Amino acid sequence: MHLFYQPLIPAGTFVLPADESRHAVKVLRVTEGDVIEIADGAGTFYQARITHPDSGNCGFVVIGSKSQLAKNYRIHIAIAPTKNIDRTEWFVEKAVELGIDEISFIECKTSERKSVNMERMEKLAISAMKQSQQASLPILNPMSKLKTFLSHRASQKFIAFVDNENPIHLKSGAKPGNHYLILIGPEGDFSSTELQDSLDAGYQKVSLGPSRLRTETAALAACLTLNLVNQ
Amino acid sequence: MHLFYQPLIPAGTFVLPADESRHAVKVLRVTEGDVIEIADGAGTFYQARITHPDSGNCGFVVIGSKSQLAKNYRIHIAIAPTKNIDRTEWFVEKAVELGIDEISFIECKTSERKSVNMERMEKLAISAMKQSQQASLPILNPMSKLKTFLSHRASQKFIAFVDNENPIHLKSGAKPGNHYLILIGPEGDFSSTELQDSLDAGYQKVSLGPSRLRTETAALAACLTLNLVNQ
Repeated sequence: MHLFYQPLIPAGTFVLPADESRHAVKVLRVTEGDVIEIADGAGTFYQARITHPDSGNCGFVVIGSKSQLAKNYRIHIAIAPTKNIDRTEWFVEKAVELGIDEISFIECKTSERKSVNMERMEKLAISAMKQSQQASLPILNPMSKLKTFLSHRASQKFIAFVDNENPIHLKSGAKPGNHYLILIGPEGDFSSTELQDSLDAGYQKVSLGPSRLRTETAALAACLTLNLVNQ
Repeated sequence: MHLFYQPLIPAGTFVLPADESRHAVKVLRVTEGDVIEIADGAGTFYQARITHPDSGNCGFVVIGSKSQLAKNYRIHIAIAPTKNIDRTEWFVEKAVELGIDEISFIECKTSERKSVNMERMEKLAISAMKQSQQASLPILNPMSKLKTFLSHRASQKFIAFVDNENPIHLKSGAKPGNHYLILIGPEGDFSSTELQDSLDAGYQKVSLGPSRLRTETAALAACLTLNLVNQ
């Protein structure tokens, strides 16, 4: 079943956004009386009946709602976006499918990319949410310098970094039912100062396994590992 | 450090393949006496000294070798390739990074794709192996019908399939140190006959988590889950 998106339902908006209206009316050819399903991105699915099949402004009435099962944990991944942005976009799409609550973009010393098109990321996330039949959209935070970012709060904070001190695996370090935040570095990795700053700010070094992973693969491995720790 | 690939070293070939020779000599500009590292795809890294920096046939002598740490488990994933082949190629790249031993392509009843360019898949796998600094290349098997494929051997055989009987999670079903084989279905999922045939052939139904995953995401989640069970 096709899922639509309208974040403003809780605020009393009962028309689909312009692009969703167009898709509903022009492509899926919904007509008056049809029942559709709409997610608000905040965890609720609505059953709605079409009242005005207008391709710019498709009106509906809500006839039912159901909350997505609440989780007792929260995953926030802060990633240094890759030079080739396709790889980061891929991560966003896959993380939404697997389940993620917040994604931040961080600028590190060796970052080859200093900006991210947030509108495009938002669209990708919405599309992945709809495709995987979920009602929750992660919070997406724009690029910030790592140093500024470090003060973010979480009950367990990690930095993916492997060195001679052989850190523990994220799987062992993460305790079920927590609010996790994990930093994933750029292609050139975190600098020693950045690592030290993170440790000083309470982040714990963790490994994601024996392989050397690309930035986006590491981020996705972290997301799946944290979900598995809670399943 | 750049890693080269030459599967024929154990058989006594001490020149790089044509494309690797070109890359070494024309791009990286290796000269006589330079030391390079070469993987044979079968688990061994070789240190080699360049003797003939020829861009078509770069010669070397082996001066040392080291085996990649052997694992006590084996992952074989059989995936129905996606209509958009990019998604399957992405899976192959990421699975090699995370660690996988064998990939098979299966044709199912609802498969929208009936063929795979194996040469391209092989190239992708080699590139991912080199990029992630590994010495082992997975076995890649060409497309076969699911029915024929089912007789493959493994110590634990799974089929990713969720229904009302609520199967166990792969994480709980997989015992450490085994040789795993898992079937991942096409966009339209396995048919009920295919499911029954698989169960009859000793496959166990497993879930990969609460989300509805795309084919390639499910395959990658299975690969990472099986690696995590063994870490």
